[in-house]
Amino acid sequence: MPSNEAKKGTPPVVSDSGYEVQPVYRQESRTGDLEDPGTYPYTRGIYPTMYRGRRWTMRQYAGFGTAEESNERYRLLLERGQTGLSVAFDLPTQLGLDSDDDRAIGEVGRVGVPISTLDDMRRLFDGIDQAAVTTSMTINAPASMLLLLYQIVAEERGVDPKLLGGTIQNDILKEYAARGTYIFPPRPSMRLVVDTFAWCSEQLPNWNSISVSGYHMREAGASAAQEIGFTLANGRAYVRAALEAGMDIDDFAPRISFFFASHSNLLEEVAKFRAARRMWARMMREEFGAKDPKSWMLRFHTQTGGVTLTAQQPLNNVVRTSLQALSAVLGGTQSLHTNGYDEALALPTEESATLALRTQQIVSLESGAADTADPLAGSYYVEAMTDELESKAREWIEGVDDLGGAVSAIEAGYVQNAIAENAYRRELAVDAGEIKVVGVNAFVDEHDPAVEILSIDQHKVDRQIERVKTYKAAQDRAKVDDALVRLRETAAGETNLLPVIKSAFEAGATLGQAGNALRDVFGEYRARS
Amino acid sequence: MPSNEAKKGTPPVVSDSGYEVQPVYRQESRTGDLEDPGTYPYTRGIYPTMYRGRRWTMRQYAGFGTAEESNERYRLLLERGQTGLSVAFDLPTQLGLDSDDDRAIGEVGRVGVPISTLDDMRRLFDGIDQAAVTTSMTINAPASMLLLLYQIVAEERGVDPKLLGGTIQNDILKEYAARGTYIFPPRPSMRLVVDTFAWCSEQLPNWNSISVSGYHMREAGASAAQEIGFTLANGRAYVRAALEAGMDIDDFAPRISFFFASHSNLLEEVAKFRAARRMWARMMREEFGAKDPKSWMLRFHTQTGGVTLTAQQPLNNVVRTSLQALSAVLGGTQSLHTNGYDEALALPTEESATLALRTQQIVSLESGAADTADPLAGSYYVEAMTDELESKAREWIEGVDDLGGAVSAIEAGYVQNAIAENAYRRELAVDAGEIKVVGVNAFVDEHDPAVEILSIDQHKVDRQIERVKTYKAAQDRAKVDDALVRLRETAAGETNLLPVIKSAFEAGATLGQAGNALRDVFGEYRARS
Repeated sequence: MPSNEAKKGTPPVVSDSGYEVQPVYRQESRTGDLEDPGTYPYTRGIYPTMYRGRRWTMRQYAGFGTAEESNERYRLLLERGQTGLSVAFDLPTQLGLDSDDDRAIGEVGRVGVPISTLDDMRRLFDGIDQAAVTTSMTINAPASMLLLLYQIVAEERGVDPKLLGGTIQNDILKEYAARGTYIFPPRPSMRLVVDTFAWCSEQLPNWNSISVSGYHMREAGASAAQEIGFTLANGRAYVRAALEAGMDIDDFAPRISFFFASHSNLLEEVAKFRAARRMWARMMREEFGAKDPKSWMLRFHTQTGGVTLTAQQPLNNVVRTSLQALSAVLGGTQSLHTNGYDEALALPTEESATLALRTQQIVSLESGAADTADPLAGSYYVEAMTDELESKAREWIEGVDDLGGAVSAIEAGYVQNAIAENAYRRELAVDAGEIKVVGVNAFVDEHDPAVEILSIDQHKVDRQIERVKTYKAAQDRAKVDDALVRLRETAAGETNLLPVIKSAFEAGATLGQAGNALRDVFGEYRARS
Repeated sequence: MPSNEAKKGTPPVVSDSGYEVQPVYRQESRTGDLEDPGTYPYTRGIYPTMYRGRRWTMRQYAGFGTAEESNERYRLLLERGQTGLSVAFDLPTQLGLDSDDDRAIGEVGRVGVPISTLDDMRRLFDGIDQAAVTTSMTINAPASMLLLLYQIVAEERGVDPKLLGGTIQNDILKEYAARGTYIFPPRPSMRLVVDTFAWCSEQLPNWNSISVSGYHMREAGASAAQEIGFTLANGRAYVRAALEAGMDIDDFAPRISFFFASHSNLLEEVAKFRAARRMWARMMREEFGAKDPKSWMLRFHTQTGGVTLTAQQPLNNVVRTSLQALSAVLGGTQSLHTNGYDEALALPTEESATLALRTQQIVSLESGAADTADPLAGSYYVEAMTDELESKAREWIEGVDDLGGAVSAIEAGYVQNAIAENAYRRELAVDAGEIKVVGVNAFVDEHDPAVEILSIDQHKVDRQIERVKTYKAAQDRAKVDDALVRLRETAAGETNLLPVIKSAFEAGATLGQAGNALRDVFGEYRARS
């Protein structure tokens, strides 16, 4: 783009990703026609007619208090038209700790549902047909464990695991980079990821064995270009690890999925999704030689941007979320979570969660955005930004490459520092008023309108803790100990961990017991401060 | 567009305007580059850098109860960041009736502010600097009268009328076609419009003498194509009337402005605004030979679609309004009203009006939609729809032409019938579930959440009625009668009515008294049932 445009009287606009936005874009910025939707490299979407053939999955992330309360919320959302489930786990569960663990005190049921035992998982899906719904589980360090609990419950109910559809996040690299809920050091963590790929490839062919996530890096302050650059770099690290473990690319790559944020710059976000799609397709086909078109297709879930929400003037968040949901759809997402307007304050209430779902339904049924595939294709601006983002994201990937790939780059702190620097730059710009946020540094109200927020019922949480204790008291200790010994032995060796973890749960072990067995062998990771 | 696409497995999608939406649009649908923004025929916007140079005016339509209460709402909106005023008048005022008129009973202050006297107008703008703010007044049959009251108040305060900026709607043709607040028959009404053009051209060079309005036809059920087709046909009728009265095109055309709706089909609406701009530019330059580029430029105000709002699940309307506001901005509007979420139930409360304004501020400051001019230019889909809408709108204009122009077509009921037919077709489609409306025929809740609504204070309205009576009791009857006699004489003749209306107000006449004088001469229009 010619940059002399900006001199014609308007101050320059520099995107968060670092390129200059021109006042006018023209045909000259375009080179020829694009490939059709459903055609490599899928800039225009992975399906030939996109939402005309199949809408995105409306999948609201939810979970709080106890398995019963979360189950009730899921049923409510399904009854109100949600089309997929998405489980939020509490922090102890994300760290592989039981609800009755001392390290869990004060955190049980706070930000998600506590799942320590098979019984908890049974209650969580009580009355929900696992063969009929797809389930996403935001779980990373212990992803394989929660997946196995889900699988066991399905098997108990006579559901063929081959029919199970859903996703585990299972993306440990971004935990070190941004989110912080890791347990083990990177290398054994990568082994767990690869073991899960192999398990899914054999046992759960319709399950997405990973959701490589840019969302949390974006939330931590990454730019749009960093979000896709670092995410694709992490995706590449998983692919390499699986190849090194001897897997065939087309055996696992079709089940790799992605998870991005949708932030407020409407058209940059659309461009970001399009750029990510074609970069991944090229990487998979050209770099890794994948033959199956499904290995080339970047399928992704989107969540509207949590950090873009404000505690001030909470209903303003309905506006932000509406625009962000639109971006995700114009960008061709396969699945979408829209935030509740109160999520800067607490977990969403029934009312705010319903409105968030209605937001998706309005975009789907009323906005016309799903009427044609990749409706913004050809836009001089959107195409130019798609190119810009691809180029900027590639620079970040090269930065990771120069350090020997994502695992080493994260160990060296490169990704974390790059994100922190962008977050700091942004913070300064907000403080200086160069970036305006309505209700925060523009159009501030002295008295923000109050909204009702959700509070967690501590009585129910206490009952959960008691239940876990009772479950443990009733265990066949010899059987459980035996299974945990086998788990430790396998962890010290090289064979796939998932069969022995599954046996341990079937013998009655809890999540925390299995987690601690792995801690004994792998050790715990501590971030450098 | 090839229509065989639809056969590839997806059911056809036919737009409300009557063309088929293809599953995929490609480069082939485009022919060459577009002219730059700020360049004839202004498809891409009327300014070279659009919002980079100057944001749209945030102009919330408001008025209720009394002049004092409305004044308070205006001050609140200005304090919260609104950048222009927009006055809603009550029904009696719109019909040229005083608040104490028997025909006004039950309607005073209901849907807008009652303005019967100069005192009312003084109170309405108490403490507001008319030289510093632009004011839009939604007033038609008595548009010239309210404009003159506004001008007199400004002059009393020492504001030079040449500095007054704003708009009167003054579009009587669409009142016959859709909105229904006419007083006189079409021909004398057209004379009042043209007299106002001449007055503004001489006295109020910065005032928009008309806002040719598609909004109400769209609300009544017109398609997007009908909305712009019939609006441009009406615009052409005003131009012809002014030319027939001997005015020079470039003396009045630069002050013609427009008013469109922004409904829910996001990208069709963007295309509609773009099509309207280039159709008007061509009409003005090629058909009427206007030389001043300002005569070619279609400047428009937008209001989000009132009929798209639902009484059910009221907060869903925040989502709809957000998307519609975005359409207006992506389409290059000069001014915007965003509806309150409660407007399907009542006039907006302070809270809903504030959120509506915040919606615009978020689109302006956070969405990036204003970062570059006409950001969707080049989009295969948007460009194809722009062409489709132009072509469909042209057919409607030809339909009007075949009947001898807008005045005759409206007298013959052609426009009304076309709109009614489209409304009926749409109603059937909603009843059949072919068109889905969330909360109405999709995702219905048994119990809609309640929201607080605004109620009108009848005590204050009663005081307004008393005040008008007191004002009349204090009139210098001889002076007023004398002025009204002159007004009747002028109405019976051919010279410009505005100077004598102004004298009548300065002599102390009320709106109703002036209105009745004109009724005496022009008669009243009755729609055929």
